Amino acid sequence: MATRPDDGAAAAAQTESGRADTTTPAELPPAGIPMIRTIAMPADSNANGDIFGGWLMSQMDLAAGNLAARIAHGRCVTVSADAMSFLRPVKIGDEVSVYCEKLATGRTSMKIGVEAWRRARIGAEEYRVTRAVFTFVAIDAEGRPRNINDPE
Amino acid sequence: MATRPDDGAAAAAQTESGRADTTTPAELPPAGIPMIRTIAMPADSNANGDIFGGWLMSQMDLAAGNLAARIAHGRCVTVSADAMSFLRPVKIGDEVSVYCEKLATGRTSMKIGVEAWRRARIGAEEYRVTRAVFTFVAIDAEGRPRNINDPE
Amino acid sequence: MATRPDDGAAAAAQTESGRADTTTPAELPPAGIPMIRTIAMPADSNANGDIFGGWLMSQMDLAAGNLAARIAHGRCVTVSADAMSFLRPVKIGDEVSVYCEKLATGRTSMKIGVEAWRRARIGAEEYRVTRAVFTFVAIDAEGRPRNINDPE
Amino acid sequence: MATRPDDGAAAAAQTESGRADTTTPAELPPAGIPMIRTIAMPADSNANGDIFGGWLMSQMDLAAGNLAARIAHGRCVTVSADAMSFLRPVKIGDEVSVYCEKLATGRTSMKIGVEAWRRARIGAEEYRVTRAVFTFVAIDAEGRPRNINDPE
Amino acid sequence: MATRPDDGAAAAAQTESGRADTTTPAELPPAGIPMIRTIAMPADSNANGDIFGGWLMSQMDLAAGNLAARIAHGRCVTVSADAMSFLRPVKIGDEVSVYCEKLATGRTSMKIGVEAWRRARIGAEEYRVTRAVFTFVAIDAEGRPRNINDPE
Amino acid sequence: MATRPDDGAAAAAQTESGRADTTTPAELPPAGIPMIRTIAMPADSNANGDIFGGWLMSQMDLAAGNLAARIAHGRCVTVSADAMSFLRPVKIGDEVSVYCEKLATGRTSMKIGVEAWRRARIGAEEYRVTRAVFTFVAIDAEGRPRNINDPE
Repeated sequence: MATRPDDGAAAAAQTESGRADTTTPAELPPAGIPMIRTIAMPADSNANGDIFGGWLMSQMDLAAGNLAARIAHGRCVTVSADAMSFLRPVKIGDEVSVYCEKLATGRTSMKIGVEAWRRARIGAEEYRVTRAVFTFVAIDAEGRPRNINDPE
Repeated sequence: MATRPDDGAAAAAQTESGRADTTTPAELPPAGIPMIRTIAMPADSNANGDIFGGWLMSQMDLAAGNLAARIAHGRCVTVSADAMSFLRPVKIGDEVSVYCEKLATGRTSMKIGVEAWRRARIGAEEYRVTRAVFTFVAIDAEGRPRNINDPE
Repeated sequence: MATRPDDGAAAAAQTESGRADTTTPAELPPAGIPMIRTIAMPADSNANGDIFGGWLMSQMDLAAGNLAARIAHGRCVTVSADAMSFLRPVKIGDEVSVYCEKLATGRTSMKIGVEAWRRARIGAEEYRVTRAVFTFVAIDAEGRPRNINDPE
Repeated sequence: MATRPDDGAAAAAQTESGRADTTTPAELPPAGIPMIRTIAMPADSNANGDIFGGWLMSQMDLAAGNLAARIAHGRCVTVSADAMSFLRPVKIGDEVSVYCEKLATGRTSMKIGVEAWRRARIGAEEYRVTRAVFTFVAIDAEGRPRNINDPE
Repeated sequence: MATRPDDGAAAAAQTESGRADTTTPAELPPAGIPMIRTIAMPADSNANGDIFGGWLMSQMDLAAGNLAARIAHGRCVTVSADAMSFLRPVKIGDEVSVYCEKLATGRTSMKIGVEAWRRARIGAEEYRVTRAVFTFVAIDAEGRPRNINDPE
Repeated sequence: MATRPDDGAAAAAQTESGRADTTTPAELPPAGIPMIRTIAMPADSNANGDIFGGWLMSQMDLAAGNLAARIAHGRCVTVSADAMSFLRPVKIGDEVSVYCEKLATGRTSMKIGVEAWRRARIGAEEYRVTRAVFTFVAIDAEGRPRNINDPE
């Protein structure tokens, strides 16, 4: 997207067309089981009836936090998320799968790679919607950083 | 945060202490009226009883989308968000204000600066929680990019 | 509305027309920053797809409670709300701002003036939807009235 | 409550004590079946873990609107609610029943008396929490007042 | 339904037609007051805009749990639900009433008969949607079975 | 459970103890990817702070409906669910996975086997919570049964 002279971002909105999807060499979601898989519901839509980016970010954070809690044996907080592009819209009724991967761990922090994929309710193919890296810090009951190897 | 040797991110979780907040030279939220101001509710909390980062991202996207719709006279979609750090936790009961600013516009896209601030329910001071730049593209009824000056 | 012979209330439903709004001398929302500003979402609508009055009352109570907690340094409960008329409908996607003002304080209670305003998603003007006075009482951990000057 | 010199409203918060409830001559909820009966859930609570007044107003409006739609054979909007006092807190887990009564009808409007009652989850007695009169106007598909005898 | 050779279940979906409903000898909901009566809202709908069976099961469980808590003077958990058929769809805006009846009690468990009925928003007749028997067990603070006659 | 003389259901509530779980020969969730995987949130809890059976039934119905829509190329409705026992409680923060399997198809209907499993937030093992068979019927836009091979 960085190469587009004016409205680079606009390209993202365009790729939803069936053609773009079917002519793309088949994408494969990450191996393994998603940390979250859910159905985008009417209650998750915005005023236009679209599933909005913020809802997706919220699911990505929940999914990554699910993995972080497991790695760190307890409570974690999100301290950062890196840049993300939304490649395709998510529609009401879509199945949304969020795949997570441990990228790195420090003494108290973890970097988690996160990808969100969509599948149309009656389709077979999954398409990537976005990806990002989230950083979590393990905390204790007082909210202070905690060694990820010491259970909360 | 980039200067921390190991767990740079961990610093973020620490700054919630009252001391850190009160010794910081007074922060001032952006001039103007927030695009969203809401109360963090129990229904917005995660399994630890914390307001999670993803909820905050969701509010930031809604707030920025509120400004984008106004700039572009109609429907817009989020196409990207840049990196963001979460400097402080948000607690149940906090007032959360999301300030937005138009940074740039292209033919079909807009860059919106977004800052989220918290105020403790019984406090007077607002503290910045995070900031980011969101990019939106104006779309028409078929989801194709639309000139931001042509009402939907 | 009191001057209508039969269905005074019916007038309220009528004022949504663009004409009525534009011929009204420009209304100005209260000075200052709203205690709540939010976007009316599909999940807030009733069976007709309208944002219902009760949702608005709920937001007004949250906003006034936000101010009450700040005045009284702790937990408060709503003990009464005076009569209110709903002058205009609120639509999905509207920005809803709730402005609050401290009107009076007693030893344990506060009267808070509350106004709710709407702005169409792509419009510039705000229009008042309703106003009312809410009374709150500061309470302690056991739910007994508490002096508003003694922090909870 | 009007007879209290200073903090008349404060009395309301006090009446929750078991003693006050049991020494009151037994209250009886209105005859007939409530228009809404629901369980106050954690997701309905505010930052203090209390069920807030606004949630109750929202349920009252839904209940009265349920009766209004039935009287007027179609879509209705709330145009006003008169003053209401909240006599007792509602707790998470309480059964909340909202009783409604048609008080008067005009050509396009209806006045509906509304009472909200609570029953503790493991108790047998119902106690009145509040009452008010809501006014609704029947509207057509364009939002214009409609004769209540002409189905939408 | 068991007698249908191929798609017995399909019959269920068909009975919503007005004709079927009006030619059926008038059904009468159970005597007494429902344990839950609520309005099916847009936020309760699935991707097709239908109120889905799972939402109805959720309301039935809440209603039966409401009665169970009252019988057992405290906390209960659902341990089983027997088979249920959904005879008619529930639409957004419908009034949904859940009637419950104590069928049997053991030392720590209760069997609760549950029926869900719908009434169209502007109709007068209630129609049964489904029924089932739920079994609850009273538990203490540690989640162990508790005699239903010993308050929690 | 049918063999217990009095409170057979009570056994279900007991099996949550860590011991029971660890001494059970390791259970393995079904092969394949769950149709729904989500985190049980505070907003999903009942008055006791427990995730209630009805919420779980709701997720099972959504998951099975997700598979049904895919099999039948369009809109489906739940027409029945068979009996189910809840073997273990689900706690706030648990990861809940719902596995689905096509058991049989008729001309317009499908039988879907559904299992719900939980994993404690910081644990590695998944435990089955319940299972059931749901029957769905494919419907067209008017709600009439539709051949599952004819896309909606």
